[in-house]
Amino acid sequence: MKYTMIVIYDCKPIQIYYNMSGKSNSPVFNTKQKKKELIKGMDLGITIKKDDDFSKWYIQILEKADLISYSEISGCYVLKPTSYSIWESIQSFLDKLIKNDGVKNAYFPCFIPKINLMKEKENFEGFCPEVAWVTHSGDTKLEMPLAVRPTSETIIYPQFANWIRSHKDLPLRINQWCNVVRWEMKHCVPFIRSREFLWQEGHSAFATKEEADEEVLRILEFYRMVYEDFLAIPVTKGRKTKKEKFAGADYTTTIEGFISQNGRSIQCATSHSLGQHFSKVFQIEFEDKASNKSLVWQNSWGLSTRTIGVMIMVHSDNKGLVLPPKMAEIQVVIVCVPKGNNLIVLNDKANELKHNLLNAGVRCIIDDSDNNPGWKYNHWETKGVPFRIELGQRDFDTQSVIVCRRDTFQKVSIKWDNLNVEIHKLIEDMHQNLYIKAKTIKEAHTKITTTFPEFITLLNNKNTVMVPFCGKCDCEDNIKTRSKEESIAQQTDEAFGLTGSAKSLCVPFDQPFLELGTKCFGECGGDAISWTLFGRSY
Amino acid sequence: MKYTMIVIYDCKPIQIYYNMSGKSNSPVFNTKQKKKELIKGMDLGITIKKDDDFSKWYIQILEKADLISYSEISGCYVLKPTSYSIWESIQSFLDKLIKNDGVKNAYFPCFIPKINLMKEKENFEGFCPEVAWVTHSGDTKLEMPLAVRPTSETIIYPQFANWIRSHKDLPLRINQWCNVVRWEMKHCVPFIRSREFLWQEGHSAFATKEEADEEVLRILEFYRMVYEDFLAIPVTKGRKTKKEKFAGADYTTTIEGFISQNGRSIQCATSHSLGQHFSKVFQIEFEDKASNKSLVWQNSWGLSTRTIGVMIMVHSDNKGLVLPPKMAEIQVVIVCVPKGNNLIVLNDKANELKHNLLNAGVRCIIDDSDNNPGWKYNHWETKGVPFRIELGQRDFDTQSVIVCRRDTFQKVSIKWDNLNVEIHKLIEDMHQNLYIKAKTIKEAHTKITTTFPEFITLLNNKNTVMVPFCGKCDCEDNIKTRSKEESIAQQTDEAFGLTGSAKSLCVPFDQPFLELGTKCFGECGGDAISWTLFGRSY
Repeated sequence: MKYTMIVIYDCKPIQIYYNMSGKSNSPVFNTKQKKKELIKGMDLGITIKKDDDFSKWYIQILEKADLISYSEISGCYVLKPTSYSIWESIQSFLDKLIKNDGVKNAYFPCFIPKINLMKEKENFEGFCPEVAWVTHSGDTKLEMPLAVRPTSETIIYPQFANWIRSHKDLPLRINQWCNVVRWEMKHCVPFIRSREFLWQEGHSAFATKEEADEEVLRILEFYRMVYEDFLAIPVTKGRKTKKEKFAGADYTTTIEGFISQNGRSIQCATSHSLGQHFSKVFQIEFEDKASNKSLVWQNSWGLSTRTIGVMIMVHSDNKGLVLPPKMAEIQVVIVCVPKGNNLIVLNDKANELKHNLLNAGVRCIIDDSDNNPGWKYNHWETKGVPFRIELGQRDFDTQSVIVCRRDTFQKVSIKWDNLNVEIHKLIEDMHQNLYIKAKTIKEAHTKITTTFPEFITLLNNKNTVMVPFCGKCDCEDNIKTRSKEESIAQQTDEAFGLTGSAKSLCVPFDQPFLELGTKCFGECGGDAISWTLFGRSY
Repeated sequence: MKYTMIVIYDCKPIQIYYNMSGKSNSPVFNTKQKKKELIKGMDLGITIKKDDDFSKWYIQILEKADLISYSEISGCYVLKPTSYSIWESIQSFLDKLIKNDGVKNAYFPCFIPKINLMKEKENFEGFCPEVAWVTHSGDTKLEMPLAVRPTSETIIYPQFANWIRSHKDLPLRINQWCNVVRWEMKHCVPFIRSREFLWQEGHSAFATKEEADEEVLRILEFYRMVYEDFLAIPVTKGRKTKKEKFAGADYTTTIEGFISQNGRSIQCATSHSLGQHFSKVFQIEFEDKASNKSLVWQNSWGLSTRTIGVMIMVHSDNKGLVLPPKMAEIQVVIVCVPKGNNLIVLNDKANELKHNLLNAGVRCIIDDSDNNPGWKYNHWETKGVPFRIELGQRDFDTQSVIVCRRDTFQKVSIKWDNLNVEIHKLIEDMHQNLYIKAKTIKEAHTKITTTFPEFITLLNNKNTVMVPFCGKCDCEDNIKTRSKEESIAQQTDEAFGLTGSAKSLCVPFDQPFLELGTKCFGECGGDAISWTLFGRSY
């Protein structure tokens, strides 16, 4: 009898075949002993510590919490139900915000004719190397290659040109939830960087620059709410430098998260002011009240499934996934701890508590599987469910239950009658705790300096660094090169990702005072125009 | 000053440029007169009668109700906010049904390696001619062409093979909401047949054939509920013949709708029993309690944005779109009819009524735009909003409003105090009215015969026809050819789509008694095995 199994070994998915005698086709698992270890290991929880080997820990979390499967296509991942439900929660939260703000959802074709893509030169050059091209239908060669959308400006804006006639048609604010494809040549990491991912892309057109500018920031604030208020992940708001802005934008605003284990920053979502770049190219004009024609002012903005990866990296721990409680699909799992023949009585009570919680708006399930309580505890801890309720015989004497928190593992006894109210408080409390914990770490890793040598030392100590910067592309190129060379010279730990170049992350909106005449920390010798956050990044 | 505009002329989108002197680049609109007609026409409502020229009427509805835009890629359409919100309503309705039934949502890559697609021969041959192939990323040729998913069996089932080990992993029931691409060479019609469309595809695996068979029908019942209970569209449940089943299925069940204007049937959604075809090919095995290995039994099932097209075709009328009231994003629009300076008083009352309706679960807006009441009436009628509330000065005397129904244009006076309750009754009543009207028409066009000549006559009178049929592919091929030839011989109206071959639509579950020894209505001379519904189809 032959078995086949895909396992994660050394952070890579490997398909192995083996038979009952323990023989396997894989050089890695060629002894009975190793197979046993492997299979034993697979039943256990997380075996790698987050602080010991962050990359491997992350991959193990994805596996054990049942979030991702690997497809035959390198860089394309399957979002299993556990992770897709996280995406659905995020979608639902953000969708409400933007709809209330007047945005309408729509859907545009996933293909972009090559000629469209080429129209905005800067945008085309930005995306060209990673475009997936459809060239044939069946056996027939297409007249013109079609790009699978890497982003949809160039398929949506020709439509805008037709839809917009007069000032009455403005503002036009459209969003689509869809898949996009960017054939990355960099190392792919599930959720964080993949060749296909899910996102929303908003596209809007306004009569005035002022209205457009306001929307850029309003949307950025919605993105901050997704991260901070919903997922308990602290972010820094700011503007990208000229070098790092979206190809084809006037300017790009961003929220940046932070991963302390490797000191890397991560771009969480962006909101772009496109100015009139695209409206010029696609002739998107409107007639004002005085019958004058003008080009519209445009924005685009996006948030993707990368959000899920950031959430896992920031909150999860050595026991497994930790789901922020406002987002969690299951907020509470009830586990009965039977003794003798009392299971029916326990189950009745559990059902009563569950229904009360559901009525109070708490998402709650009972694990009534055949597994023993210990197995259930481990299982739901690995899956990241925020609260576990334990119900045993003794709890009937006190008319209470034990509630265990996933973030601190603290156990509290709560009276049945107070459960609904107390769980709501605990949800709020756990959210705050996760947020403040992450924020404290992030702030402790945000340093400030004015000199390049100190910058490198801070970088290699897993920090992001605020520096006075001139904002010029040449200077930033130079910083990138030098930071790579000098951090290698310091021989920091490559396994931890503590080498590699630093780049600008953003010019934070929240600026310390910049003394007049402060010089750029780079080699350019020019004046700094703002404090800029630099660091290594995903 | 130059204008550009895409207009629908003779059912085709045409881009025209013109300047203020009335000169245009289009041969169709080369006189000032014609341009005026055109622009005047565009401001009017529906100008083509549903019964006069159904195809053109349909295209005009799409245009005037603002449902679709045409993209540069033939056969790929933009779902504008009005139609995308219909899709969101349908998604929400169906998603709840399947989730309550235990199905989990997930997301799989949109690309399928050619080698996967080729594994199930019948399935591959079915989809091969219309596959869009990605062959390059940037300038680099891919090692193996990737198909943009036409359906996802061959990308999902290799995953199932890895996910399923034991009977404890079953049933496995997964659904994804996504886009799919089928490069149709037939004439494309928005919503009905397009090269990219949105759908859900469910994929499940069971330990036993019995469980799988039960699910096939349970899902088909959900689809019936979407059409009949939510969209008020009557459908016929049945099984496809061998010739018409899904490529790679054991059998296919279907719900079929009917369009009376051209007598065409339309496949509305399908639920397939895949048997063990795919589990054999992809080695999807499970171990039962006694440690024996068996192949799983599988189903797949799908419902697409075609649903929107069927809804438009069945319910809409010469005034525009008619939205079934349970689905409509806006169920009620309130229009104030001011007199003198009383607009503020009217608006206050309108707001009060709106809030009461919203609290009662009725989706309601006020049109407080600058346009006059007549314009507003026309606008919302064209957009298909089920109910319009008119509020004027006189209504204050009677403490009531006038409610106008979109389906019958009947006006009723309803007291303010009774409005919430009465609107709910009207929603139910309008739903029933739409459903029964469509069902009556559908039943009147479902005929029965045992002879081929009568079959052709009935077909040409815009009917679908129940006939005794042997079920064989050869015989069905022959019927297809003969029905085409003989209906042309009868010289029926080609413009109305009343020529073309007939095919089997389904073997309805609801079977009239079939006398033993009844012969097939085709030329085969064999025994009929069931009554089968034949007709022209979309």
